[in-house]
This record gives sequence, C-alpha cells and structure tokens, in this order.
Amino acid sequence: MKADTVSMQPIGCVRSPYRDTSQIPKGLGAKHETEGFLELRPELEPGLADIEGFSHLYVIWVFDRSEGSSLVATPPSDTRQHGVFATRSPRRPNPIGLTVVELLSREGPRLRVRGIDMLDGTPILDIKPYLSSIPEDRLRRGWLAEAEAKARR
Amino acid sequence: MKADTVSMQPIGCVRSPYRDTSQIPKGLGAKHETEGFLELRPELEPGLADIEGFSHLYVIWVFDRSEGSSLVATPPSDTRQHGVFATRSPRRPNPIGLTVVELLSREGPRLRVRGIDMLDGTPILDIKPYLSSIPEDRLRRGWLAEAEAKARR
Repeated sequence: MKADTVSMQPIGCVRSPYRDTSQIPKGLGAKHETEGFLELRPELEPGLADIEGFSHLYVIWVFDRSEGSSLVATPPSDTRQHGVFATRSPRRPNPIGLTVVELLSREGPRLRVRGIDMLDGTPILDIKPYLSSIPEDRLRRGWLAEAEAKARR
Repeated sequence: MKADTVSMQPIGCVRSPYRDTSQIPKGLGAKHETEGFLELRPELEPGLADIEGFSHLYVIWVFDRSEGSSLVATPPSDTRQHGVFATRSPRRPNPIGLTVVELLSREGPRLRVRGIDMLDGTPILDIKPYLSSIPEDRLRRGWLAEAEAKARR
C-alpha cells in the first residue's frame, strides 16, 4: 500500500487578501494576524457541527502554486540551507501546507479565521480541532532558535 | 484549480507496534507514549538534514485502512455526535491523519519517535518541524472539554 498514489479532492478553499506570495509576511518575527475565510463546499457544512467550540484549528492545505520540489531549502528566516522536512518550504515532495488558525466565527460553510498565511484560492484538504500544545519549555527549535539568537545580537 | 484532484506519493511509512486499531489507546485520558519509527524512502534522506535540532515534529499521514467517510462522528471520548471536522475521526472526506511526535533520534532515513498512534505500515505524506504552541490558557477545546468535565464528576 505504501508506494501507492493517494488521491484527494479539496474540501474547499481559502479566502485571503494575499494574491501573491510576496505579500505574505515571512522570516524571523513575521506575525500572522491576517483574517480571512475557510470556505467549504456547501454540501460539507454538516461536517462543521460543533466546531465553534474550538478556539484554534489545524488547516491542511495544498501549495497549489508551488512548482517542483527540492530536498533542501534555505528558509527566509535563515541564511543556511536545511533539509526540506526541517523547514516549512513550499517546494516539498508532497506540496502540503499546515497552518494553525484562530477561529473567530462561522457563517454556514464559511469559517472566519485569524492567522491566514495562504494565498487566495488555496485548496483545503482537511480541518481538525487543535486539542493540546507541547509546553514551550519542552520545545527545541533547532536552526530556527539559532537564527533567532543571531538576529537578536 | 480548487476542484482538481490532488495526487501524492507517500514519502515513507510508520513502523509501529500496532497491527490493529483496537490496540491503539483511545478516548479520554489516552496516553500516547508509544515509540516507533518514521521510515523514509532512502533517496529522501537529504531532506532530513538538521531535523535532529527539533524536539517535536508534525507527521501528516494517510488513514489507509479506514473505509468510507461520514460528515458526523461519535468520538471514543464522547457519547455525542459531532461534525467530522470537529473530531479526529478517520472516516473523513480526505483520510488525512496528523500526529505530533517527539523526535528521539535519527538513523539515516529512519526517525525514532515517541507518541505513535498510527498502525504499522501507515503511509506518511509529510514531516514538518513543530515550531510553536498556542498557550494552553488561550485554548478552547469545545465538546472535548465538556466530555472531560463530565468524566471527572
């Protein structure tokens, strides 16, 4: 099974003020406070029942305007190259993006959310409730922590 | 683009002690301390460079042994039915799973991790670094918090 191709249909798309990747805040200290919508296909609305109870959601989406992939990437937050799985680079073997957003409200099959870092029209594959966090004091953040420390000097 | 089918090839698979879903701890208070491996295709090993610096990883994977989907689900942690996107049910429109694991060590293209809740052989679509947490005091956890409160009574 594991070598098989997996096919998926988007459940909806992102409505975002960003039309071009150059407009999306990137790199060290980038804030993601932008509001937008997750717009589901109308027939999927029953799948959102009780979602309003959650403050934060995981959005799994497709880098649909990213081309090709590379096993290494130089992130906007660093000057050094790292393995693609140690970065959020869009040019990855499977072009999957993952964003945590804050849920502000729901209007039928549309969720108003804060924390959008996707382009307008980005296809959404799945939405899941954010249930728990790893405490900050237990996190090690590798090259990103080093890049942040360097930037503070 | 958004209505188009998205096709992906697994980047590897999970090595887990679980052969059957009945063996996986579920429901309120379930602990996920199980160790296992994320085994990448050998040619993807360069994509793991510098991943050792991160304590926790997101694993995006496929519920490859789940059949069909439903827009509502009754989770093992509750007696009530909820919209599928407000749950972690495997029977979702796109059978994508998301797990946060703790990275223990790396041996070439194999990552030893703690927190496995997938079956042995589960296809992996992507691995990303876990960079930051939503503070627990800012999280609302909807029906799950209610079910936990009820169980404590």
